[in-house]
Amino acid sequence: MNTFPALSDRHSDPAIYPPGVAYMDGQYLPISEAKISVLDNGFLHSDATYDVVHVWQGAFFRLDDHLDRFFAGMEKLHMSIPLDRAAVTEILKNCVALSGLNNAYVEFICTRGTSPTFSRDPRDAVNRFIAFAIPFASVANPEQMDRGLHVAVTDLVRIPPASVDPTVKNYHWLDLVQGLYAAYAQGAETAILLDAEGNIAEGPGFNVFAVKEGKIYTPEYGVLLGITRQTIFDIGKDLQIPYVTGDLSPEDLRLADEVFVTSTAGGVMPVTKVDNTFIGTGSVGPITQQITRAYWQMHKDDRFRTEISYP
Amino acid sequence: MNTFPALSDRHSDPAIYPPGVAYMDGQYLPISEAKISVLDNGFLHSDATYDVVHVWQGAFFRLDDHLDRFFAGMEKLHMSIPLDRAAVTEILKNCVALSGLNNAYVEFICTRGTSPTFSRDPRDAVNRFIAFAIPFASVANPEQMDRGLHVAVTDLVRIPPASVDPTVKNYHWLDLVQGLYAAYAQGAETAILLDAEGNIAEGPGFNVFAVKEGKIYTPEYGVLLGITRQTIFDIGKDLQIPYVTGDLSPEDLRLADEVFVTSTAGGVMPVTKVDNTFIGTGSVGPITQQITRAYWQMHKDDRFRTEISYP
Repeated sequence: MNTFPALSDRHSDPAIYPPGVAYMDGQYLPISEAKISVLDNGFLHSDATYDVVHVWQGAFFRLDDHLDRFFAGMEKLHMSIPLDRAAVTEILKNCVALSGLNNAYVEFICTRGTSPTFSRDPRDAVNRFIAFAIPFASVANPEQMDRGLHVAVTDLVRIPPASVDPTVKNYHWLDLVQGLYAAYAQGAETAILLDAEGNIAEGPGFNVFAVKEGKIYTPEYGVLLGITRQTIFDIGKDLQIPYVTGDLSPEDLRLADEVFVTSTAGGVMPVTKVDNTFIGTGSVGPITQQITRAYWQMHKDDRFRTEISYP
Repeated sequence: MNTFPALSDRHSDPAIYPPGVAYMDGQYLPISEAKISVLDNGFLHSDATYDVVHVWQGAFFRLDDHLDRFFAGMEKLHMSIPLDRAAVTEILKNCVALSGLNNAYVEFICTRGTSPTFSRDPRDAVNRFIAFAIPFASVANPEQMDRGLHVAVTDLVRIPPASVDPTVKNYHWLDLVQGLYAAYAQGAETAILLDAEGNIAEGPGFNVFAVKEGKIYTPEYGVLLGITRQTIFDIGKDLQIPYVTGDLSPEDLRLADEVFVTSTAGGVMPVTKVDNTFIGTGSVGPITQQITRAYWQMHKDDRFRTEISYP
């Protein structure tokens, strides 16, 4: 005779989560309670778009630009939510305010959602909006910010634009994750992936920049059009540092005077070693430092700040 | 003065889910309660592998082959779980038994999981195993099984193997989903994507086959090595229908005598229209019918069946 296990009413989750507050279905929840169905197409088909904005000293930085990209991404994926920009802004503010975080990593997501019948037609699903605020996160830790990241250029090819539109911020990261494992195996701390032509593309969550003879270079095609990347262009204009977007080979990177990467998660982060080559003097270069200072200075400019009220 | 919304203890989910039973963390749950954290890297980075096996008349079909692929995929992604094949088999059997389903769609998943600190290093995450059984699902509905699917060959390029290893069954489906929307816009019911060379790759969850002058043709590279695809080869040997794996152009497909697609979700499914071209006579062809009969006949063969005991 067979015996069968009992069916539980609710999942008891042994995992430990960081602090933070999430929003789902009109409810604000501790981040540990923010869960999506395993049947959500945002999980089962990675059928989702999202954005991440950071909060610095009680204000969002360039929130409008992140909202622009998020709403444009939803449209490209044929998704819609019953929330406009003002409603999303209100929700993001509430997540941060309820979390009490002065510096935060704020992610907002639209998933394809589920259909009651597990239909394979994405048009049958009800799209789902989720947002959460957790403590500010950075690609580089304080030690790495100080002495520069060590990166490896791996032979993995970033998913090309003919397959997935990189201007729609998406969760297709297996290439980036496999790149990380390849980089770790070479003793590096993070990875840079190539495009299909063998030029530099991007890394896990960041854009790549090289500085050569006073000019800034960064890839143009097949990469996320990062808001921090745009901020570097804005800073370049302000500081009269010329910038060029176009092909950048691994050799260009190794022969650069300075290299840095950019992300909402961390801002401007120096790179001082690429594969086995130290870049320039092997320490954080002057233009990287100048841009980093300008980046954080911009966070005090009201044109880029959206203030948050806290309880 | 600002007022702030209240924080709820638990999420109240308005969505309606199909019937079924899931397993997570040693617990069996109604599928409606099976939820993963929004912070799980399986969601935020689509950093996961999975497999789907079907249950037909109270038995798994080719379970061993699905387990082989799942465990191989985890290894390629540097994942591990504290469960061996026997333990996973036991869990899958229990999900089906507790669901009471005689015909079922059974999915088992390993996600990268989460780390308590939201670390960006995948090595810090605790991998998570999830399984669920829901009613049997098919790519084609009964009407489409009868008269053949109408498909469109879209200009989307399936994510190439240099980016994501297609032999690791994965959730990177945005190219397939955008292909579906492109197909719907052309009045078709599902989509076929191309590879980087412009040859036929695969569709959302299925492999593609053409029949020409008594031979079966199917793409060789850059596609999922489907278990049902393998079953077609096995049937080809049994029935002495020669099969060839290699490049298949969109024109080859349109000029074929018969076209069919294969998936664990539905088995062998006829295609009678590609873009605006009817295939062969425009109705389900004799070799497709012969293979379909053989496919379901194999479900009675003890070599491929793993019986389930029900309460």
